[in-house]
Order: sequence, then structure tokens, then C-alpha cells
Amino acid sequence: MISRTNANSFRKNLELYAERVNTHLKAIIDAQYKSGAPQELIKAMQYAVLGPGKRIRPVLTYASAELLSLKAEQVDSIAAAVELVHTYSLIHDDLPAMDDDDLRRGRLTTHREFNEATAILTGDALQAIAFEVLYSDHFLRKDNAAQIETIGWLAKVSGPKGMVGGQLLDIEAEKGVTDEEGIANIHNLKTGQLIRAAIMMPSELSQITKEAKTKLDEFASLIGLVFQIIDDLLETQQDTAVLGKSSKSDMKKNKATYPSVLGADKSYDRVHKLYDNSMKALDFFGKDANTLRCVADYIINRSH
Amino acid sequence: MISRTNANSFRKNLELYAERVNTHLKAIIDAQYKSGAPQELIKAMQYAVLGPGKRIRPVLTYASAELLSLKAEQVDSIAAAVELVHTYSLIHDDLPAMDDDDLRRGRLTTHREFNEATAILTGDALQAIAFEVLYSDHFLRKDNAAQIETIGWLAKVSGPKGMVGGQLLDIEAEKGVTDEEGIANIHNLKTGQLIRAAIMMPSELSQITKEAKTKLDEFASLIGLVFQIIDDLLETQQDTAVLGKSSKSDMKKNKATYPSVLGADKSYDRVHKLYDNSMKALDFFGKDANTLRCVADYIINRSH
Repeated sequence: MISRTNANSFRKNLELYAERVNTHLKAIIDAQYKSGAPQELIKAMQYAVLGPGKRIRPVLTYASAELLSLKAEQVDSIAAAVELVHTYSLIHDDLPAMDDDDLRRGRLTTHREFNEATAILTGDALQAIAFEVLYSDHFLRKDNAAQIETIGWLAKVSGPKGMVGGQLLDIEAEKGVTDEEGIANIHNLKTGQLIRAAIMMPSELSQITKEAKTKLDEFASLIGLVFQIIDDLLETQQDTAVLGKSSKSDMKKNKATYPSVLGADKSYDRVHKLYDNSMKALDFFGKDANTLRCVADYIINRSH
Repeated sequence: MISRTNANSFRKNLELYAERVNTHLKAIIDAQYKSGAPQELIKAMQYAVLGPGKRIRPVLTYASAELLSLKAEQVDSIAAAVELVHTYSLIHDDLPAMDDDDLRRGRLTTHREFNEATAILTGDALQAIAFEVLYSDHFLRKDNAAQIETIGWLAKVSGPKGMVGGQLLDIEAEKGVTDEEGIANIHNLKTGQLIRAAIMMPSELSQITKEAKTKLDEFASLIGLVFQIIDDLLETQQDTAVLGKSSKSDMKKNKATYPSVLGADKSYDRVHKLYDNSMKALDFFGKDANTLRCVADYIINRSH
């Protein structure tokens, strides 16, 4: 669908978008220094947010904005807010009472670099800042009705019927192996819904048709599951150095994963089928979806 | 200022408002059962949110709405959202890595009744739900611009330059005694800002003048500090049975409190001076402020 030359130029776009959200995230954290917030808390937020990260969710937001003919600056805050929520979830998931991980993105986890109390509060603070970023954004404020909808998306996908609910089910699943439906549900809540929001939130700022919205949502839901199954597969195959987090830690904890229930081969079958369907959903948009296709390509071919 | 008979009738109002927010909170949690959220998470939210509580913040919201000539139903979601954020902060503050408390409101803390992971996630979920409640409220949606401002208040007072920042300073203060200014700052961030928001958020729905807004904000900031100093004083004087949480636990942990730095007598002086000034700020509103005066009266005279 995309020629090799085009693919390279789109790949370059993804790097630019990752840099773009990094710049925006840095500005958000820097602004905290003038706010009267405690230094130690800001340092911990800085450590967690500005560390190395793939920025898949923000890149999806920018690629979705491209498809919707929005300017990148219209969705800067959406991209940042989604990454802030994602980062807060990583900090809390890594805590001793949860997954008890020492490494994340190739560095000490926040509670190991600082301490547990600071890590809990840093996650809490990042969730609040994510909403504040959507509240205060200059571009979003031009249309309060659309702004409210972006806030609604973030609140819904972050809470009990989204990310937090998924994390609870993920922990409970350690008690026993579950079936494919159960894993798909955990993945959908824990990872899928926030990825879906990253792609769908920009649509609130556009005049997209109902049919187009349905197609985009179909892609968003499918690519979220693709992302997570690839993540499961990478966990079983890579070593710690490449992955940047303790590898095989999911297996050690008896986490419910696609390969643990279906085996690697069937998991690859599933992921390719889901990917193919996600591409079909994008057919509707023609070449406007080329950057989104490129992100999807990166997601299915990534090695860490 | 308020006659004895009137005081009794206002006191009755406070009970009705506390019941009112309880009904609304119960409906919010019950709605989760139909949402696909994990049962265990909903049970923990139910336990934490619907346990006994004074509901001071929601009552302040309703009393502020009265002063502003708003109907109670216009601020139901504001009252509930503020209490949800307050409850999430209690759950996280009680965690072993933070204050490590076993009792809260006369019952086991959430991490003792359930487990640590569930308690962390329950707090996280309640923060997200607080924003979702403000997003989805039927009355607030009638005026998106005002709705956005209530969301902005909640985000700002919950984050690093509010509640979460205050909790971090509170933990750090255990390392050494601090001065009055330092304690006032911790109290303002940790407790004061959310109480301020409980009172000020309804003002976004009204056509209040700038001068009136300043007076209301003055009262809000003062009464927040009054509340926290009384809390400090009660901790040093009451036993566990009356207080419903482990008494003198602040002293055991070398927490920075007004009595620990100023002594009880000077702390009482301070609190009465702050209370008197808060009453002066309400003079501006005449009899419209009678219910707020009654809440302030309850706050300064409470025994637990």
C-alpha cells in the first residue's frame, strides 16, 4: 500500500511527532517549577515523563490528526495528556504491591529511583495534570463543547471501565490461567482503551462523518489489541537489554498473555489477522491514512 | 449572628445535604456495575466511598450554592466529585508507604480490608471517576464554558500545586520540625485547596460579581485552614474511639502540625482569629451566607 520511499518519509514523520510531544511534555513539567509545587515531586515527574519512551500513543494522536486534516498544534495537548496518563499507569503498575518491577525503559523504576510514597504521588499528580493540560489548552478552549468531549474520553478510558479496571483484572489473572476472551478483555481495558482514545480524541475537533468515525474507531480498537499481543510476544522472546525492562517477568508472574494461552504461533496468526482487519478499516480513508498505516506498520514490526 | 432556633434549622440542612451527596455517590458507584468494570474494584470503591464520613466538603458546596442562589441539583456532581477526590486521597495517604494507617472512619483502611494493589487502583479509579462525573452531568452540560471551569478547578487543586503536592510536603516534614509558615503551606496545599474548590466551583455556574467572588474565596481559604488546625488539635486530644482513626498517630510520626510547633493554646488563638476573619468575609453576603456560617460553626466546634 505504501511504497518503500514513502514509508521512509512517513517513518521520519513518526520521529518528528515523538520529538514534538517530548518538547510539549518538557514544557508542561518545566511550568510546574513556577507553580509552587514541591521540587521533589517535580523531579520525580521529570524522571518518569521525560525518560526514554516510544511515544506510540502521542504519535497515533498526531497521525490521526493528519487523517482528520487537523494541525498538529490542535492536538499537542491531547497527545501530551494521553502520554501523561500512560506514564502514571506505568509508575503505579511497577510498584512493589503491583508488578514489583525494578527496571522500566532501561532505567530504575520511579519507586526505586525515588521511593514508594513519591512514586504513588507522582502517578497521582500526573493524572491530575493530564486533565489540567486538556483544560488549559489554548486551542481546545476555542471550542468548549469539543474540549469537554476530549476530557470525557480521557476520564472514561482511564478509570474502572478502562485502564485501571484492566490493571486490576491483570493482577487477578495471575491467580490462574484464563481463556482468550478473558485476555482480550484485559488487554482491551488495560491498553486498548487508552490507545483508542489517543486516536479518537482528535476526532472531536473535526467535522468527521458518523461513518468515518466508526471506521476510525474500528481501526483504533484493532490496533490497540495488535500492540498488546506484540508486547506479550516480545516479552517471551527478548532479553532485558533490548527490552529495557525485566524480560520474562510476565511469565514469572503467571500473567495472562496471548502466548501463555494460545502459544506463540497462534498468537502470531491472531495478530496478523487483527492487523489485516485494521488495514481494511483504514481503506475508507485512502491516502489520508498513510501516516496511521505507517504507525501500524511500526507497531507490528517493532523489536522492543 | 444566627439565632439558636435558626442555627438548629440550618444544622438540619447540613444533615440533609450530607444525605443528599450520599445518595448521589451511591448512584455513581451503582452505575459502575453496569459498565463492565471489575467487581472487586467496584466493591472496594463502594467500601471506601460509602463508608461513614462527615461530608464536610460536599456540604460546603451545597451551602455555597445556596449563597449563590443555585439549586442543589445544579451542584450535585460538583459535591460528589470533590468527595471522590477527597476519598481517593485518604485511601492513598493511608497506604503502608505513606502514613501506614490501619483505621479510617472507624473501620479498616481500604488496603487492610482488601489489599494494597486494590487500594492503589481504587484511588486511581476514583480520581478518574471524579472527572467523568463532572463531564457527564446533565446540568453542567448545559453550559460547557462553566463546566470546563469546574473541571479546571478540580484538576488544579488535586495535583502537584494542591492536594498531592501537600501530601508530599507532609511526608517530607516528618524529617524535621518546621515553622508556622511551612505548616500553613502544607495545610493549604493538602487540605485547603480542595476545600476552597468545594466552595468556589459552584461560583462558575453563577453570575457573581468579581468583588463577591473575591470575598467568597477569602472565606474559602480561611475556613480551609481553620478545618485543618482543628483537625490537628483533635488528633492531640481525642482517643481512637471518638476519632475513628488511630489518634496521636500524627504525633508518633512527627507530623508537622500547628500544636506541635505553636502549642495548643497558640493554635487555638490562631484558629479563632482565622475563624473571625472568615466570618468578616461573609458579612458581604448578609443572610444569604447563613448556611455557610452554620457549616463554619460546625467546623470550629466539631469534636471528631
